[in-house]
Amino acid sequence: MSEKRRTMPTPEQLRVWRDYVETSEALRTRLGGRMLAESALSSGDYRVLLALTEAPGFTLRSSELASMIGWERSRLSHHLGRMEKRGLIARTPCADVAHGVDVLATDAGREAFRAGSVPHLRAVRELFIDALSAEQLEQLDGISASLRRHLEV
Amino acid sequence: MSEKRRTMPTPEQLRVWRDYVETSEALRTRLGGRMLAESALSSGDYRVLLALTEAPGFTLRSSELASMIGWERSRLSHHLGRMEKRGLIARTPCADVAHGVDVLATDAGREAFRAGSVPHLRAVRELFIDALSAEQLEQLDGISASLRRHLEV
Repeated sequence: MSEKRRTMPTPEQLRVWRDYVETSEALRTRLGGRMLAESALSSGDYRVLLALTEAPGFTLRSSELASMIGWERSRLSHHLGRMEKRGLIARTPCADVAHGVDVLATDAGREAFRAGSVPHLRAVRELFIDALSAEQLEQLDGISASLRRHLEV
Repeated sequence: MSEKRRTMPTPEQLRVWRDYVETSEALRTRLGGRMLAESALSSGDYRVLLALTEAPGFTLRSSELASMIGWERSRLSHHLGRMEKRGLIARTPCADVAHGVDVLATDAGREAFRAGSVPHLRAVRELFIDALSAEQLEQLDGISASLRRHLEV
């Protein structure tokens, strides 16, 4: 470990890093394409609706929603504007916080989410789960946990 | 396998998928932030200059460059415009292809790349390599290879 700290990554370690980043990007792009082709929802729509449908009253403060899905506030706000025009969500001023906004998944939004879940889950299974053995899935689980623990230090 | 094909992912499998995607996104964001803080280059600049400095004569056709780094042509073109203003690259019409553009890493661009390499490699080591055991790195290598093989089918 102390040996590793003092040295730059080896070409082999760098290759593992680049493959990790590029493979996860390729998977996300492929999944996004499938979602667009097979459902009325983009990956971004799906992610917003997933968070809202799991919240009490299908509602979250927009600041909570932004931090849950890890987007910048301005990106979320533009995305929500487009979803609101399509009737998938509704925004209302918070009763108790000045300038706060509550975001609600509408009936139409919840219905679109239910309909989009099947293509989404099918794509995850076909593109990701089917590619890996049970042992590899378990290994990957441990690897993600190690990386997250390390990032939070 | 045929059992898996017929069924939707289990909650446990879905968790591994979400952790994989979110962890790789968090790492990319963190690395991008480090690059911006510690060097004059963004991750995108670094990626363009890496490809050019490895090319013969430090030059690539812009269409080759786009496919090497996996960007849309329009995104690359905007990014190159900004890099050209900063003197990191230069663009000239191809001698032999109508509408083709050659992209060259200038002396200043190659120098910025060399200076940016140390912070980049240090960040990869600290954020990624140091988080994982040698065994986990080897497992991840196999997992990325399985995923890529599967995607290409």
